[in-house]
Amino acid sequence: MSRRSITPPAQTREKILDTAEDLFLRVGYAKSTVADIAHMLGMSSANIYRFFPSKSAINDACCRRLMARLRLEMQAIATAPGTAAERLSALILSVHRRNRDLLTRERQVHDMVDAAIAESWDAIEEHKAACNLIFAGLIEEGVAAREFSPTSGFEALAETIGDACCALFHPTLIAQRAKSGDVPPDEAPARRLIWLVLEALRNAAGRPMP
Amino acid sequence: MSRRSITPPAQTREKILDTAEDLFLRVGYAKSTVADIAHMLGMSSANIYRFFPSKSAINDACCRRLMARLRLEMQAIATAPGTAAERLSALILSVHRRNRDLLTRERQVHDMVDAAIAESWDAIEEHKAACNLIFAGLIEEGVAAREFSPTSGFEALAETIGDACCALFHPTLIAQRAKSGDVPPDEAPARRLIWLVLEALRNAAGRPMP
Repeated sequence: MSRRSITPPAQTREKILDTAEDLFLRVGYAKSTVADIAHMLGMSSANIYRFFPSKSAINDACCRRLMARLRLEMQAIATAPGTAAERLSALILSVHRRNRDLLTRERQVHDMVDAAIAESWDAIEEHKAACNLIFAGLIEEGVAAREFSPTSGFEALAETIGDACCALFHPTLIAQRAKSGDVPPDEAPARRLIWLVLEALRNAAGRPMP
Repeated sequence: MSRRSITPPAQTREKILDTAEDLFLRVGYAKSTVADIAHMLGMSSANIYRFFPSKSAINDACCRRLMARLRLEMQAIATAPGTAAERLSALILSVHRRNRDLLTRERQVHDMVDAAIAESWDAIEEHKAACNLIFAGLIEEGVAAREFSPTSGFEALAETIGDACCALFHPTLIAQRAKSGDVPPDEAPARRLIWLVLEALRNAAGRPMP
């Protein structure tokens, strides 16, 4: 009681999320309950509900936190030394590897992401929009450096590149491939897709993007 | 009994599939049973099992038939008049529209496809390989006509283009978007993705595909 009274709410919130994430990863999202999380923290469920209205809201917050961490990694790659093409290539490959490893090594993450896709579409849309800005900035740099052909509408272009890399990024597709045992040991398909994107960017001057 | 004895097995097989498809589309895949299909045909379940060992095998055959029909449509577009770029563009857009309409207008199809993804991965892989050859042929024609830059490995390139168009083609993604109400009324994202692919093909001479 005395310990709870001196913990700032933001810190309690983080602790709930840490515990929930830990539980979701150990026993799976479907099998975890708010009562389990409360029990692990020595709290009442009612106290948890003061911070999060539901298990789905806890998962939403966990996924938002995870996605924010991923974006920090992405930002680091986007601002590293190198040409825009090198960084764009590294960025696509890194997001691909991160999503693949997260979803195939830690299968429980898949349940959380699946629940998020079903219940927290907004969080995912916001993440996609934020990722898109990272890609758009990199394309703009590449155009400024005359690596890529001049074109306008960097955000729309970044979105198109995101769509084109869907097979590499999308959790559902990665999980589906993993389930069917179709996780290619080499990264040739990813490298070819990156090549396709870069060839398009280098040639994008001729015909403006529709 | 006398009617069954004069029907050739291939025709009975088709009739079972027609009936199953009809049933799956009306009441849904999950709710349909082999006994229902048998009842509709005035057959015994045992007779159905002479042709198909399980409901899953019936769905597998239904999906194979549906995919074969889709490939006939694709082949017609690929061999229509026009430049290779025009035909490739029309082909991508047509597959996109066909999948979208099939999955969003006829939601029951989604259950069948989902079951096929879970249970008939081979059929889907074979379909993808056959579609890939249609795309590869079109790319080769475009290279021969000097519309696309010379490059080798048309099949790998076609596969890469298929991956790039994943967001437009993949039943799971289309269904996911439809569920979240995110079916864009315009086809701008599709047209941009096609533009990206064509720009890459026109510029693919400089750096060989990895």
